[in-house]
Amino acid sequence: MELYIVLACGLAALVYGGLTVRSVLSKSAGTPRMQEIAAAIQEGARAYLNRQYTTIGIVGVVIFVVAFFLLGWTSAVGFLIGATLSGAAGYVGMNVSVRANVRTAEASRQGLAMGLSMAFRSGAVTGLLVVGLGLIGVAGYYLVLTQGLGLSLADEVQARTVQNALVALGFGASLISIFARLGGGIFTKGADVGGDMVGKVEAGIPEDDPRNPATIADNVGDNVGDCAGMAADLFETYAVTTVATMVLASIYFVGEQKTAFMLLPLAINGMSIITSIIGTFFVRLGKSNNIMGAMYKGVVATGVLSLAGLYVLIDRLIPGGGTAAALTIGDKAFTGLDLFWCGAVGLAITGLIVIITEYYTGTGKRPVNVIAKASVTGHGTNVIQGLAVSMESTAMPAVVICVGIIITYLLAGLFGIAIAVSTMLSLAGMIVALDAFGPVTDNAGGIAEMAGLEGDVRKTTDALDAVGNTTKAVTKGYAIGSAGLGALVLFAAYTEDLKYFVAHNDTFTYFQGVEVPTFGLDNPWVIVGLFFGGLLPYLFGGIAMTAVGRAAGAVVEEVRRQFKAMPGIMEGTQKPDYGRAVDMLTKAAIKEMQIPSLLPVLSPIVLYFVVYFVTNNKVDAFNAVGAMLIGVIVTGLFVAISMTSGGGAWDNAKKYIEDGHYGGKGSDAHKAAVTGDTVGDPYKDTAGPAVNPMIKITNIVALLLLAALAH
Amino acid sequence: MELYIVLACGLAALVYGGLTVRSVLSKSAGTPRMQEIAAAIQEGARAYLNRQYTTIGIVGVVIFVVAFFLLGWTSAVGFLIGATLSGAAGYVGMNVSVRANVRTAEASRQGLAMGLSMAFRSGAVTGLLVVGLGLIGVAGYYLVLTQGLGLSLADEVQARTVQNALVALGFGASLISIFARLGGGIFTKGADVGGDMVGKVEAGIPEDDPRNPATIADNVGDNVGDCAGMAADLFETYAVTTVATMVLASIYFVGEQKTAFMLLPLAINGMSIITSIIGTFFVRLGKSNNIMGAMYKGVVATGVLSLAGLYVLIDRLIPGGGTAAALTIGDKAFTGLDLFWCGAVGLAITGLIVIITEYYTGTGKRPVNVIAKASVTGHGTNVIQGLAVSMESTAMPAVVICVGIIITYLLAGLFGIAIAVSTMLSLAGMIVALDAFGPVTDNAGGIAEMAGLEGDVRKTTDALDAVGNTTKAVTKGYAIGSAGLGALVLFAAYTEDLKYFVAHNDTFTYFQGVEVPTFGLDNPWVIVGLFFGGLLPYLFGGIAMTAVGRAAGAVVEEVRRQFKAMPGIMEGTQKPDYGRAVDMLTKAAIKEMQIPSLLPVLSPIVLYFVVYFVTNNKVDAFNAVGAMLIGVIVTGLFVAISMTSGGGAWDNAKKYIEDGHYGGKGSDAHKAAVTGDTVGDPYKDTAGPAVNPMIKITNIVALLLLAALAH
Repeated sequence: MELYIVLACGLAALVYGGLTVRSVLSKSAGTPRMQEIAAAIQEGARAYLNRQYTTIGIVGVVIFVVAFFLLGWTSAVGFLIGATLSGAAGYVGMNVSVRANVRTAEASRQGLAMGLSMAFRSGAVTGLLVVGLGLIGVAGYYLVLTQGLGLSLADEVQARTVQNALVALGFGASLISIFARLGGGIFTKGADVGGDMVGKVEAGIPEDDPRNPATIADNVGDNVGDCAGMAADLFETYAVTTVATMVLASIYFVGEQKTAFMLLPLAINGMSIITSIIGTFFVRLGKSNNIMGAMYKGVVATGVLSLAGLYVLIDRLIPGGGTAAALTIGDKAFTGLDLFWCGAVGLAITGLIVIITEYYTGTGKRPVNVIAKASVTGHGTNVIQGLAVSMESTAMPAVVICVGIIITYLLAGLFGIAIAVSTMLSLAGMIVALDAFGPVTDNAGGIAEMAGLEGDVRKTTDALDAVGNTTKAVTKGYAIGSAGLGALVLFAAYTEDLKYFVAHNDTFTYFQGVEVPTFGLDNPWVIVGLFFGGLLPYLFGGIAMTAVGRAAGAVVEEVRRQFKAMPGIMEGTQKPDYGRAVDMLTKAAIKEMQIPSLLPVLSPIVLYFVVYFVTNNKVDAFNAVGAMLIGVIVTGLFVAISMTSGGGAWDNAKKYIEDGHYGGKGSDAHKAAVTGDTVGDPYKDTAGPAVNPMIKITNIVALLLLAALAH
Repeated sequence: MELYIVLACGLAALVYGGLTVRSVLSKSAGTPRMQEIAAAIQEGARAYLNRQYTTIGIVGVVIFVVAFFLLGWTSAVGFLIGATLSGAAGYVGMNVSVRANVRTAEASRQGLAMGLSMAFRSGAVTGLLVVGLGLIGVAGYYLVLTQGLGLSLADEVQARTVQNALVALGFGASLISIFARLGGGIFTKGADVGGDMVGKVEAGIPEDDPRNPATIADNVGDNVGDCAGMAADLFETYAVTTVATMVLASIYFVGEQKTAFMLLPLAINGMSIITSIIGTFFVRLGKSNNIMGAMYKGVVATGVLSLAGLYVLIDRLIPGGGTAAALTIGDKAFTGLDLFWCGAVGLAITGLIVIITEYYTGTGKRPVNVIAKASVTGHGTNVIQGLAVSMESTAMPAVVICVGIIITYLLAGLFGIAIAVSTMLSLAGMIVALDAFGPVTDNAGGIAEMAGLEGDVRKTTDALDAVGNTTKAVTKGYAIGSAGLGALVLFAAYTEDLKYFVAHNDTFTYFQGVEVPTFGLDNPWVIVGLFFGGLLPYLFGGIAMTAVGRAAGAVVEEVRRQFKAMPGIMEGTQKPDYGRAVDMLTKAAIKEMQIPSLLPVLSPIVLYFVVYFVTNNKVDAFNAVGAMLIGVIVTGLFVAISMTSGGGAWDNAKKYIEDGHYGGKGSDAHKAAVTGDTVGDPYKDTAGPAVNPMIKITNIVALLLLAALAH
């Protein structure tokens, strides 16, 4: 019964999305010139995503077959569901964005409030789609498995089939997500960096000037990278964390507690869809015209309502007294109320990460100011200062995460951490809405510029866009923070799974003669695992940055070629060949995303078998793989935060100068700031956020590896 | 007896140094103009180091008093010895460099071979000073403690006093080293970055042009940062690793084995001083005029001889059969021969790290080429590609270190790792010689430029300088690799110390009721410790980069001011005020080095007491601190390697363009490459190498914390 209510909540999200789309589409799409530009962007975005998903599809089919043979058809189908829905969330989100952009530009002609409303509502569609599809996927498949197929959670083997199928669903989502993040990220930043370098710096024309042959590609990139890529990413975090919490519940509890606690994360998600929908109505521009404030009203409303909802859910669902229920895991005793407090900690972590990220990336704060100031003395000092800020920005979030881990652990053990992350992710719909708002306004500004709309419109879209930069940075901080905690939950699932298999090695014969690994840091295999895991985000980041640099370089050369071959472009008498840049970037992004995406998929498997081969000792291999999972979280967290915060700070330092400080637009300081922004682009929009799904894929592949070995 | 031979080897290093200094000083110091410039550099360097050591002295006195009360006078004196000798190594090295620079310039007038010989020999003085003083300090104090004071290794309490005193000696060395690395690094890169940005990029004058008011400061920086700072750094790695190996020996073995194994690292060091001295004679320019080849001949000769020497030492010193001796630690059985192979692995690691670093930083290889190529499309792509290379360059060294850990561990357990690092560090004298060669040739080039020597001389010094860039990068790779492994040995000492104190908690009453921590990754305190340790290199690096950026910005403004106030400078009719830049940088560097240097000193102590305060459980606190030590190694290794390799690659990409590729000097590509080089400067010469001592200080403070708690 409860599961049907959960599914209904998921459907509510889709219905809300559908209605909002209808309302958005009913608005005017502006002048014919605007529609022409928008059509070009739509066409490019669709063409790119079609090719991207075709390529991922091929990888997906291979993995589907492998999963079918190694883990059985329930897991293979789970993988398929996760992959399809993750792709769908990105695809539909993109389709809404490419229609909302031109309507936002048009709405901005009527003022800030109208522009904000249009952009935010289209973002909300993507946001609710992500959580709606995520919830329907996980809860729906869980329903099919337990009630449709009649797999019983009371039966150890059947419960494990359910668990594996859900983990495989998470893997499907992760796989799509890393490809989408990386491919989209390479496309968008190749266009952005290349376009800026040749347009702003060399030719001295403004951003989104229609004379720049890379400008349509830049706008396409916003949609396929920042919108579709990000949607796939948060879909993944959402689905994987939900699954991981369910897995932990299935391991830690028995009987009716097991059923209740496996339901709990789904119920939290369902409840928070309703609170998110309510929250969207709180997003309204006040008298002060504070756009960021309008957004936060929505987030805070959602958070407060979710917290209240969490209390009710815990009180209703937990058998044996709700919030008063006495629970134990191992030798840790806690109550339902403790779990509620864990949820509150999850929301507190979110709040603190938002505040810290805003501090590091917001205009008017020290970090952005010092970067802007350093631009006065040149390109070099700008970049040095930006790198300094990016490194420094990791410290406070890491401390917050540490404190969060400790409080939740002291309250309710590892399951407390899982509940904290689940609650944190209950805000995902709202947060994605904030983020998806960014590319829409960015596009709107581009369309306004290209269509030559009156100056006021551009001012309005610029104001919206500046807020978009901050919300994008904040979302990324939130995504990596929750991903880090979520990955710890996955690691807990890995260790608990191992314990389980070892304890039941009469059934799981592969584990006969295997002790439970201790993961002690005094074990050299653990150290090696940590180093090996630690190198993955670095290698991955390096490859991603190279890919963007290469794509951007190609764009620069193409634009230079067009300027030279068609001198009429700069005079405005000739139309640049926009399609070539889009086409070139599509090919480059698809090609470059493949190897790095497979790195985290293959690494745990390779490490396991290499260590096992060297020592002929399974425990050593399990120790090494376990430590690798932590290693990838440890360096991954720092790499991702430093990149996303640093990139945001560079971007806003440039904007700060463009607002007339330190010489303003066209000054040498501005040129230096553009260089910094350029460097920050792949940092914050390609490599940094892609580390997210990378961390989780490594963890989830390790779980599937255990399942395959046990099978 | 053996100890006296070891001390004699240490003295031999000093004698070699003294004779070489005499021979260097007997050579002509060039024209009066050259001498005048050299005098200005000398004066600036001396003034800076005096102020730096005065500041460190104040911190040192405080720590001396604290050590005296917490750990007793033997530890306090040990701290004093380590600090004094580390300072002395840097100070004397600097004094030789500032005299050899002008003589190298003069010698270069007679050709490449003469220039190389002069520069290398002065580098060798610093190199042998580092190892000579390091060995005399450790072995001498060990002799005083065991024979002078009659402390018996057979007596548990007395052995522990010896151990603590040696660890304190290592701490003294580390403390000086982090200050020197950071202070010197901020000075040198503030001058370099600032000078380049305003000189090369803005004013379009060549490097080291006498019209640039920052040029003397730049040359001073080479001596106080790259020479004195680096000498203190490797002194520290050398002393700390020797001490750590001795401590492990004292923990793992008893009776005559204990005495023999505590002697072994000292004997290896003594032997390798002799092989290093022999190795210096192999450094000769062949017919091919391959400078790098000449250097490597010396390194390879030293390595081969050291390996042979290691075999002899093991065969002579290990009681019960030398290489055939059957040894056990815990349940690990191995032979003396296994230890020899561990030493061979240490040399193999060194060789591989050299090859990998050369690949990532050497001209003509893919990484440098792609950075150079990316410069064509602008500042942004140059920096993006450089960052990509810097991240990617961490992967292979990490793999090599992992393989090294595993092989040595499989051969002889944790003690095998210690022997591998000891053998690795037996090359330290030679490696420091290669590195100290760099600033001397850099200065020589500067002096040649400023004194207006004929073009050929500058070409010669440029050729030497280019090699200096690679040797500097190689040395840093070596330093961080050995530091990482050395820190693992320190971590082993931490865990073994804990076990020891817990087992003897009737004597060490603080440890009553404490279990031995397991350091399991499934323990949240361990995870928190890893994250907390992991954030230290990031925070530290961020602060260091900010400091350089700030210092460089100040230099840029000062130079711009002088150009404006004294228009005669650019016409060559007015002499710039060199002293002001030196003075400004001195103040900035001293001020900025203090807080980050104390970060690793205080972190373990703060973490221990905070965790203990929160949980009232000492085991949790020990777990957290232990994990922190590993966390700082894991991220520290990647941060340090990425910075040092990336910086080297940027530097040589610029050189490659200056050699006439992609448009050559003055082209837009060159300007972009200068920006990259500028960013790489604090990466490779300030933040990156300073992470080294930072890692070890954290570890060594943790050891002293245990000692203080036990006391």
